[in-house]
Amino acid sequence: MSSSASSDKNRNECRSPADLAARLADRARRAGLAMAQVPGRVRTDALVRMADALRRDADAILSANARDLADAQAAELSAAMVDRLRLDPTRLEKMAASVEQIARQDDPVGQTVWSTVRPNGLRIERRRVPLGAVLIIFESRPNVTSDAAALCIRSANACILRGGKEAIHTNAAVGLTLGDAARAAGLPEFAVQVVTDPDRAIVTGLLSAEGKIDLVIPRGGESLIRAVVQQSRIPVIKHYTGNCHVYVDAAAAGIADMAQAICVNAKVQRPGVCNAAETILFHRDAAPALLPRICRALADAGVEVRGCDRTRELFPVAVAATEADWRTEYLDLIVAVRVVDSLADAVDHINTYGSSHTEAIVTSDLFAADAFVAGVDSGNVMVNCSTRFSDGGEYGLGAEIGISTDKLHARGPMGAADLTTTKYIVTGAGQLRQ
Amino acid sequence: MSSSASSDKNRNECRSPADLAARLADRARRAGLAMAQVPGRVRTDALVRMADALRRDADAILSANARDLADAQAAELSAAMVDRLRLDPTRLEKMAASVEQIARQDDPVGQTVWSTVRPNGLRIERRRVPLGAVLIIFESRPNVTSDAAALCIRSANACILRGGKEAIHTNAAVGLTLGDAARAAGLPEFAVQVVTDPDRAIVTGLLSAEGKIDLVIPRGGESLIRAVVQQSRIPVIKHYTGNCHVYVDAAAAGIADMAQAICVNAKVQRPGVCNAAETILFHRDAAPALLPRICRALADAGVEVRGCDRTRELFPVAVAATEADWRTEYLDLIVAVRVVDSLADAVDHINTYGSSHTEAIVTSDLFAADAFVAGVDSGNVMVNCSTRFSDGGEYGLGAEIGISTDKLHARGPMGAADLTTTKYIVTGAGQLRQ
Repeated sequence: MSSSASSDKNRNECRSPADLAARLADRARRAGLAMAQVPGRVRTDALVRMADALRRDADAILSANARDLADAQAAELSAAMVDRLRLDPTRLEKMAASVEQIARQDDPVGQTVWSTVRPNGLRIERRRVPLGAVLIIFESRPNVTSDAAALCIRSANACILRGGKEAIHTNAAVGLTLGDAARAAGLPEFAVQVVTDPDRAIVTGLLSAEGKIDLVIPRGGESLIRAVVQQSRIPVIKHYTGNCHVYVDAAAAGIADMAQAICVNAKVQRPGVCNAAETILFHRDAAPALLPRICRALADAGVEVRGCDRTRELFPVAVAATEADWRTEYLDLIVAVRVVDSLADAVDHINTYGSSHTEAIVTSDLFAADAFVAGVDSGNVMVNCSTRFSDGGEYGLGAEIGISTDKLHARGPMGAADLTTTKYIVTGAGQLRQ
Repeated sequence: MSSSASSDKNRNECRSPADLAARLADRARRAGLAMAQVPGRVRTDALVRMADALRRDADAILSANARDLADAQAAELSAAMVDRLRLDPTRLEKMAASVEQIARQDDPVGQTVWSTVRPNGLRIERRRVPLGAVLIIFESRPNVTSDAAALCIRSANACILRGGKEAIHTNAAVGLTLGDAARAAGLPEFAVQVVTDPDRAIVTGLLSAEGKIDLVIPRGGESLIRAVVQQSRIPVIKHYTGNCHVYVDAAAAGIADMAQAICVNAKVQRPGVCNAAETILFHRDAAPALLPRICRALADAGVEVRGCDRTRELFPVAVAATEADWRTEYLDLIVAVRVVDSLADAVDHINTYGSSHTEAIVTSDLFAADAFVAGVDSGNVMVNCSTRFSDGGEYGLGAEIGISTDKLHARGPMGAADLTTTKYIVTGAGQLRQ
């Protein structure tokens, strides 16, 4: 960074983690207040420069990544983890292209979401404004660094990014590149701060910086999210993985091929992601005709079927499902199958065992579709299409910072607009309250 | 209540506070899921019946209130507290009229706030849906019971209402009236639950019912709010009182009368409320002409002026202000006055000492107004009008459940629409993810 940062570095060495956290938070607060006044075109220009800089600094970033990969192999991390960590020219180009795509998205800041003129002549406007400072805590994928920084800049927020210690050299290199490009474009210093000190006490300090940091988004496994929720005194938006359902309604008999295609696509097209289906529910009237052929198609696609007693009568190959299966997010080629007596029972099952992420109904009955949509307490409800469409890109929202399974502030795929709050602006000509 | 409730009552006697809390939360969760399917016209009818029932049961409610007042006098509560607690026929009629007004408000549930059709033919809709179950913890004003219940029904949420122990008989009577009317209109049992057991351990239990209760709103003094935030594992929306500012800009010289009228109105029209002004900031170029006459007008209205050194040069009657004055919400006829060197310094002062509630600028300069609006990190910004307009009724939002000083989910006056979340509904005809 700049020379002042390097002289800072010497001073840092005698600082405690709590001091460092307080300083990161203070800087983010000030940068956030300054960001609120940076015009959208300047932020767009910064994003374009950041994308260019990722391409220009490819060699430095890839060699930093090589150090992380060597450390990972020495530490005998799993092949899946090493793969998530790995950058290559293609993956780095994807990171740059994603930042460019965010540069082209509409600027949410300054949009008027509601307005009225009152009888006394006051003009009331509710306008989107940035949140301020956002802390993102994530695991090993290095692309989160650039995506999260870009979404925060699109929404005029300052950000603090804290990635996994496995990716520390990569994140430091990406952070240096992004930070330099952002400052060169005229963004406030410290608009993007990447924490590369692996000390967990810094995270603890950041999570208690209420009033300075406005929002925490943990991205990663459930244990990371739970640890953040436990510690944080700042609002957290959670992105738990999904225990998603497909419900094949009584009125699906006439659309058997569609029901089968949706069940198979929802389960097998990419089983390791949060919007893949984990349980399929059949209405008892649809089960005799549809359950055997759909379970057969799933088994043919390599899926292990675990069923309730009624499922196993119709599809004896199924393993017996236990209570635990209804709660499990397999993220694998396994599916739980249950026969229910009614749509209301399907809704009950989902609201009891689900994770409020994404549910689908297959039906030709309009009233059944409406009842299912109103009844399931989930952020995304699919009518006659695959659960796999639950995604910011598929919704046309652009890049997403995650899929919120919370109900407050943001629910479902969370894009740049969900990183804003609103402000009421009341314009008068001397009005007084009577 | 019903006979099952009275047999429940016997069983309750050996239940622990934690059990009781769990049971209240379970019932609220179930009632919330059922409420999501109750049509708006049924909820409107319930609100009309609730207003009628408050009038019909006036004698019972007023005699319950008389018991609370007698207890309050015996306990030697302050006159202000006793006044807040007191109901009379006029105040009870106001409660009923407020419920009727909420019945006439637009139903937020089911509104589509965003939609798109994707190239693959999927129709994506983001629709307002209820949060589920809302816990409202409040102090002695009995009208909060009916207002909060009505706003939750308007937004199709189940609610748990826990008022102060001083108002326990009044709240029990109001709760019985409202609950009976709601059930008679066909709302789910337990849509409105009033907690009348004064045991604080029940509140502790409710605050840990994550996954069952979706939102907590504490309404009352800062110590109540801090205690709730400290304990809660459920998202809390805070409504701190306001440390509100009026900034008299350099370009206010031509509108001196307006500047004076706004400052006086913001401070004295009702000094004890959260949107009254506490500090007035003068640009140094405006101070010589405006500060003395405005401070004089405030003093003439009975206000004690506490000023910085530069203020006291221009208005020697002022008491010397200390650092603590900039942070204080007097809620009284006292005002802090400071001269600043620039609009940026005014913004800095507000972002340093303010409570993010409501700020006003008086100016004829368009660029100054825009810079102030973008710069202050507050939920409500007034341009050339009194801070006292920061209010749901004045904004045309209808009744409010409070004025949020938080940034997440709801900011500023919070009406029925802010008690909803959204759900993405994706409608297809068999689309699969490639």
